[in-house]
Amino acid sequence: MRISGITVTPVAFHDPPLLNATGVHEPWALRGVVEVATDDGLTGLGETYGDEAHLAMVRAAADALLGTDPYDLHRVGTLVAECVGSAVVTHQHGLTGAGSNQKTADGVFSPFEVACLDIQGKAAGRPVVDLLGGPVRSAVPYSAYLFYKWAAHPGAPEDPFGAALDPGGIVAQARRLVADYGFGSIKLKGGVFPPDEEVAAVRALAEAFPGMPLRLDPNAAWTPQTSVRVAAELAGVLEYLEDPTSGIDGMAEVASRSPMPLATNMCVVTPDHLPPAVAQGAIGVLLIDHHYWGGLRRSTQMAALCQTFGIELSMHSNSHLGISLAAMTHLAAAVPNVNHACDTHTPWQNGQDVVAAGALRFSGGAVAVPEAPGLGVDLDRDALAAMHEQYLRCGITRRDDTTYMRRFQPDYQPKTRFW
Amino acid sequence: MRISGITVTPVAFHDPPLLNATGVHEPWALRGVVEVATDDGLTGLGETYGDEAHLAMVRAAADALLGTDPYDLHRVGTLVAECVGSAVVTHQHGLTGAGSNQKTADGVFSPFEVACLDIQGKAAGRPVVDLLGGPVRSAVPYSAYLFYKWAAHPGAPEDPFGAALDPGGIVAQARRLVADYGFGSIKLKGGVFPPDEEVAAVRALAEAFPGMPLRLDPNAAWTPQTSVRVAAELAGVLEYLEDPTSGIDGMAEVASRSPMPLATNMCVVTPDHLPPAVAQGAIGVLLIDHHYWGGLRRSTQMAALCQTFGIELSMHSNSHLGISLAAMTHLAAAVPNVNHACDTHTPWQNGQDVVAAGALRFSGGAVAVPEAPGLGVDLDRDALAAMHEQYLRCGITRRDDTTYMRRFQPDYQPKTRFW
Repeated sequence: MRISGITVTPVAFHDPPLLNATGVHEPWALRGVVEVATDDGLTGLGETYGDEAHLAMVRAAADALLGTDPYDLHRVGTLVAECVGSAVVTHQHGLTGAGSNQKTADGVFSPFEVACLDIQGKAAGRPVVDLLGGPVRSAVPYSAYLFYKWAAHPGAPEDPFGAALDPGGIVAQARRLVADYGFGSIKLKGGVFPPDEEVAAVRALAEAFPGMPLRLDPNAAWTPQTSVRVAAELAGVLEYLEDPTSGIDGMAEVASRSPMPLATNMCVVTPDHLPPAVAQGAIGVLLIDHHYWGGLRRSTQMAALCQTFGIELSMHSNSHLGISLAAMTHLAAAVPNVNHACDTHTPWQNGQDVVAAGALRFSGGAVAVPEAPGLGVDLDRDALAAMHEQYLRCGITRRDDTTYMRRFQPDYQPKTRFW
Repeated sequence: MRISGITVTPVAFHDPPLLNATGVHEPWALRGVVEVATDDGLTGLGETYGDEAHLAMVRAAADALLGTDPYDLHRVGTLVAECVGSAVVTHQHGLTGAGSNQKTADGVFSPFEVACLDIQGKAAGRPVVDLLGGPVRSAVPYSAYLFYKWAAHPGAPEDPFGAALDPGGIVAQARRLVADYGFGSIKLKGGVFPPDEEVAAVRALAEAFPGMPLRLDPNAAWTPQTSVRVAAELAGVLEYLEDPTSGIDGMAEVASRSPMPLATNMCVVTPDHLPPAVAQGAIGVLLIDHHYWGGLRRSTQMAALCQTFGIELSMHSNSHLGISLAAMTHLAAAVPNVNHACDTHTPWQNGQDVVAAGALRFSGGAVAVPEAPGLGVDLDRDALAAMHEQYLRCGITRRDDTTYMRRFQPDYQPKTRFW
């Protein structure tokens, strides 16, 4: 079996004005859909970032992979690494930590790895979770991912989610997401307002949802000193505190004085960050993300490493579509030590998707692992075409929350160790 | 697909009087052959230890696994762990470190995991290496595994290998193994004679095989002090020094003063040993062994962990047959950071095997990865029956090198930190 063709299709979908420490989401979110076809008629799907510089490398890798055996993932990885060379693609938003050559190569590899596993699953007649050791859970719990947000993109009509700019708005948003999806955990994206306001929102959530696991993620907007103070204030309230400050050193300083575990998807984003993070006791929870950790199999390996070193696991999410949700679900279903509900942006898609409806459904806050061979999702070609058309027309080629924010607040500065 | 039947067949094969730090190999080596059959007519093979207490747990697990999906390896692991309960089986010889409940459970799980991967490979029409990410090498280099040995078991005629009790005998043995198999690396099992005699043997090997990577493994027969002295004497001569002394603390003490990396298959034998070994810098090379590290997939995970923490990899071997050699070869072919030629006892089998001839061949010291689906080896049923008959007649049910040695040297004591 050989790879006979690869199609890379950038797509854009409507994204609400979600606020974070680097600005505000633009009206369109970008993703890349990767379709890998084999000479025996199987196809596999992968989903990746839609930024132009990244897509250029994905396209170059796609050309290089023609003729490769989709079981030969080491070869796929080698060819991708050759295409990437010494390049470093840095996501402008910085919300997943600094860029590096390793992270760049792992990010380009990931959609191909997922697509090849989709193909392997179809060839074997088994779901991808079975290729990763089989399911330890039949459904994967996700968390309600709350955002401070405006009622609408400036100049546009109010979006269906409404504004959330204070504790009351956040609680209302949570009530809606919990009612619609059944989520049993709640994460608040912070780093938007001064820490005391975000602490107040968390306290309001704790009051509105007694006993529900809560998390706060200011994306490193705080100094270590502020982080320690907030951690103390939220003792017994937070399940974990995510990336309160930047860097392994900073996180270690906070962790040593924090009553709850610190989680990260910013200071530990490639394997070489793990030895110093372990040595310094910087993190208690790693938010794994197969999109930049080099695919599903590598993620299971890093999960085993975390289990060995007593680091718990959750899962990170950027804005994504159903191919990624399927991949995340297969992965989390196969990893015993995903001890926390995973992040997902799915509710913010508001039904937009490139995959045909029906394969992925939230019930009780969890997504049942698709049982069909491979990832278990199929493309909706009409939707793909429409979303590609949106990509061509939207005028965005690179996510840039900061520049977009500055249209409305010209003096806006991203918040790193700001408070 | 469900497991419809499992057969566990203990076998015995002739073993030469190989000397080590705990005594001498008995005339028969024991192994357990595990055959897993599925309801759709596929069969998978695994190979494990032949000691009675271990086999009893393998048999109990075999009963528990009926009806399980061979892709559901998490479920297989859970059922095995339930069967093993809190049991701790300790190999009397102690040559693979202390026993623990984790190691016991991982050891019982391993042959079933290998057999299930054999089935998965056959179901997909692909070799096991492809299920582990594909081959990074088409053939796996093994090392010449030298032993001090008597010319014969007492009372028996001289065996085909002859005596090796001094540097000259060791060099002659190496010449024979290198000529017959093409090995490009040499390991000497030490811990038999005072360190200076073994240093002399290593020096003789270095002179006879200029530039050939050499290793010495005294199985923790030395004190840390002696280990440091020997390491200094063999600077520039040894590729690595294996288990000179016992324990992570002892190894760390030696490692900090050793000019070459220290390797182990004794002080790090389960995942929980890795954090202290990493923290203390105790080892530079891990000799992975899927038989007690919980199978092939777990071994790839531990390999990724070692790569992350800068620990190199080689592979440990006990006396084994062709099913294990096939499994070891698929594993080592799939793991990029197996940086050293693997150990194997294959030459000491002298052609005895339960697998049909032809699938596994040494060429230039390496075994080509079988390309047939699954492990790529088939049982020779006549050989299996004959070797099972030998098991029933040989009178050995548990490997015990020390008691056997005491028949001839009643005051013999195993050597731990002896010199």
